Amino acid sequence: MEEVPLRITGVQTHDLRFPTSLQLDGSDAVHTDPDYSAALVILETNTALQGHGTTFTIGRGNEIGYVRMRQALQFLVVGKTLDSIVDNFGKFWDNMVNESQLRWIGPQKGVSHLATAALVNAIWDLWARREGKPVWQLLCDMTPQQLVNVMDFRYISDVLTKEEALDMLTIDPDVQKEREETMLKDGYPAYTTAAGWLGYKDEKIRVLCRQYLDAGWDEFKIKVGQDLADDRRRLQVVRETIGPERNLMVDANQRWDVPEAIYWMKELSEFRPLWIEEPTSPDDILGHAQIAKALAPYGIGVATGEMCQNKVMFKQFLQAGGMQFCQVDSCRLGGINEILPVYLMAHKLNVPVCPHAGGICLNEMVASTSRCLITSACRVARRNRRHRVRQHLSEHLETPAVCRGARYFPPQEPGYSCRFRPEALSAFRFPDGTEWKRLIRAGLARNTRTD
Amino acid sequence: MEEVPLRITGVQTHDLRFPTSLQLDGSDAVHTDPDYSAALVILETNTALQGHGTTFTIGRGNEIGYVRMRQALQFLVVGKTLDSIVDNFGKFWDNMVNESQLRWIGPQKGVSHLATAALVNAIWDLWARREGKPVWQLLCDMTPQQLVNVMDFRYISDVLTKEEALDMLTIDPDVQKEREETMLKDGYPAYTTAAGWLGYKDEKIRVLCRQYLDAGWDEFKIKVGQDLADDRRRLQVVRETIGPERNLMVDANQRWDVPEAIYWMKELSEFRPLWIEEPTSPDDILGHAQIAKALAPYGIGVATGEMCQNKVMFKQFLQAGGMQFCQVDSCRLGGINEILPVYLMAHKLNVPVCPHAGGICLNEMVASTSRCLITSACRVARRNRRHRVRQHLSEHLETPAVCRGARYFPPQEPGYSCRFRPEALSAFRFPDGTEWKRLIRAGLARNTRTD
Repeated sequence: MEEVPLRITGVQTHDLRFPTSLQLDGSDAVHTDPDYSAALVILETNTALQGHGTTFTIGRGNEIGYVRMRQALQFLVVGKTLDSIVDNFGKFWDNMVNESQLRWIGPQKGVSHLATAALVNAIWDLWARREGKPVWQLLCDMTPQQLVNVMDFRYISDVLTKEEALDMLTIDPDVQKEREETMLKDGYPAYTTAAGWLGYKDEKIRVLCRQYLDAGWDEFKIKVGQDLADDRRRLQVVRETIGPERNLMVDANQRWDVPEAIYWMKELSEFRPLWIEEPTSPDDILGHAQIAKALAPYGIGVATGEMCQNKVMFKQFLQAGGMQFCQVDSCRLGGINEILPVYLMAHKLNVPVCPHAGGICLNEMVASTSRCLITSACRVARRNRRHRVRQHLSEHLETPAVCRGARYFPPQEPGYSCRFRPEALSAFRFPDGTEWKRLIRAGLARNTRTD
Repeated sequence: MEEVPLRITGVQTHDLRFPTSLQLDGSDAVHTDPDYSAALVILETNTALQGHGTTFTIGRGNEIGYVRMRQALQFLVVGKTLDSIVDNFGKFWDNMVNESQLRWIGPQKGVSHLATAALVNAIWDLWARREGKPVWQLLCDMTPQQLVNVMDFRYISDVLTKEEALDMLTIDPDVQKEREETMLKDGYPAYTTAAGWLGYKDEKIRVLCRQYLDAGWDEFKIKVGQDLADDRRRLQVVRETIGPERNLMVDANQRWDVPEAIYWMKELSEFRPLWIEEPTSPDDILGHAQIAKALAPYGIGVATGEMCQNKVMFKQFLQAGGMQFCQVDSCRLGGINEILPVYLMAHKLNVPVCPHAGGICLNEMVASTSRCLITSACRVARRNRRHRVRQHLSEHLETPAVCRGARYFPPQEPGYSCRFRPEALSAFRFPDGTEWKRLIRAGLARNTRTD
């Protein structure tokens, strides 16, 4: 008897939000009151299998991705078999981001691209679950040709052609195997952002740094950009506490104009930061390049990418020297299909990738993809790559990222690790989850949705 | 008795679509079935005055801007007086595009920025109506300091500071007056895109070119990029018919990668196009610069901007030499507040502005703003600027743009000319307007909205 093909039959979407603004967790100089949120999409099939994908947002606006997703999905996936999508996934991806009417409201940026990410993540989750593998393993087991087939090369062929990609991905199977084993055994280095938030007092910073040092961490990042004197104070304390050798990074969250960024960072250069992250507008490729050039003599690189909208922008940041550390985001880009060519371009142009994590589900997705890419799936990584960690909210996920000491370890469960626990859905669906109802009743939150 | 201040009390939004895809009007190599659409916002006040603003889209997705607008509006404008907004309009604009949670799903790009445009356009319309002036006249009558106050300089101060802007805008009042009078008398040059759509036969092109020549037009643009042999054929016919001296432009609508764009345009160079428009991804600043450099020896410039997402991108296109003709769009940018600094940067870097028009209401907005900016409001324009014309659908507007011969003339009615006739609203609201109901019943259209 012929097997019935796995077919996508419907879509659920959920607007999940967590009231993190009540504690100001994750706030920075620009994003002052984030409610960490997930626009969750669940693909239903003609079997018991589902595909789950999310987009990370910080609250208001989460339902816009949600509406967009429902709309895009009905056109593009419902009724299709999984195989008809993944057999020519690169082409499917290109058709989706270039849908003839919807592309006008993007293209490949902002809300519509965030929604694309959730959908594409859900397809990868479904695919990996059908194969009974975590996503990284699915990627590792693909042939170079299969990997190339999930990518779309439109608009990047001046830097990366399909043929080059194929060549980069073709390596000795023994080397690939060895890298995979090393990664499984040693995990993957992470850094922490938890020790030096804006406004922390000296003693609190010192205590936190020591705690993290004791737990095995040796890379630290702190927020800067609100007040130069306060930045100097906190950097002084961190540098003193962690010693002269460990890496210290700083993050301005897009606070400055170009001349101000250069001035400010020269003032902080004595603390020898490894990088300045998001010094100015995430769209300002030439501005980042100018900042990078001015700071190179001080040994400070520029890191950016968490708000970099698509692979065409990454291509240029890499070409222009505007990015010494490439912080690709699993939801800002349109899923693994777009992350892969960015990794390859970064490899070609010799820029290390340090994926953005720290939002809801981002740690989990990074654990799935960056591991696969530093080891065998992409076969190309040679440089040390870090990503940040902030573990809060992972308790709401079925399979939270595994972090031991200052290292992540790859998930063993099938799928893309984007599945929320049922209790999280019933408590944190906005605005009708039990927890939101309680907060709204108590006057601690309000329903800002109007759709 | 003290006058009661004009206050915004509520917001209406309408999803207006016109079934242009049934005739394939406006289709190109990438946007194959556009339904020209407007996400219309109407600001209600404590008086009989209203402010109308629109965003142009091409169909599906129009309701997303619509939902976004309602949401953003409730936070940001309802309850405010008009004066509290416009007295410090630049700051208001900056707060709006950097709203602490919503900025995550942009920032300043895609859906959220299109929605910003509709809202900001509506505020300008309301303001101009209160003053009893067309928007261009309102701008002309502002002092340099007042003009600078509506702008936001965040992220562009490396190219344009507030002080430079003030300096550029300060000119002899007699010169300003003279420019205004010239503009009112002579109007403003336009070009036509109607003579050479993809697939038109030789004879049809020849007849259309002659008709337009007879009507006084002497600049022609045709679509290219689908088939090189067909492009050569149509360019040959147009060049023969319009003669060697008149300007001929070509538009690829983002069809190519960078190397392909250079190859293709060299193949078309014998027909001496003035510019190649949108040769590749609208995000590819460095790609455009590379194309421009390769085509400069052939006398071909690069035109782009209708999908350029914000002033930070325009800044870079201008800096990098990626744009020899700056095609700013009245809805893609966040309204006049953002158009003004782009005009000033283009002026400083010696690049002519040729605003994007041709969509619903775009001609009307261009007539309001580009006129003001070529004459006195901005006080800075010296170079010839063109914009395209396509008059269809203007019958649905209360005050369609006035075009005589190949020249536009500025509107005399108060406001920003974005007001639809009541009949248009009742017929073309999607999906419940009478015309859409008829089309859906007849099986010629379907309701793709799911919200």
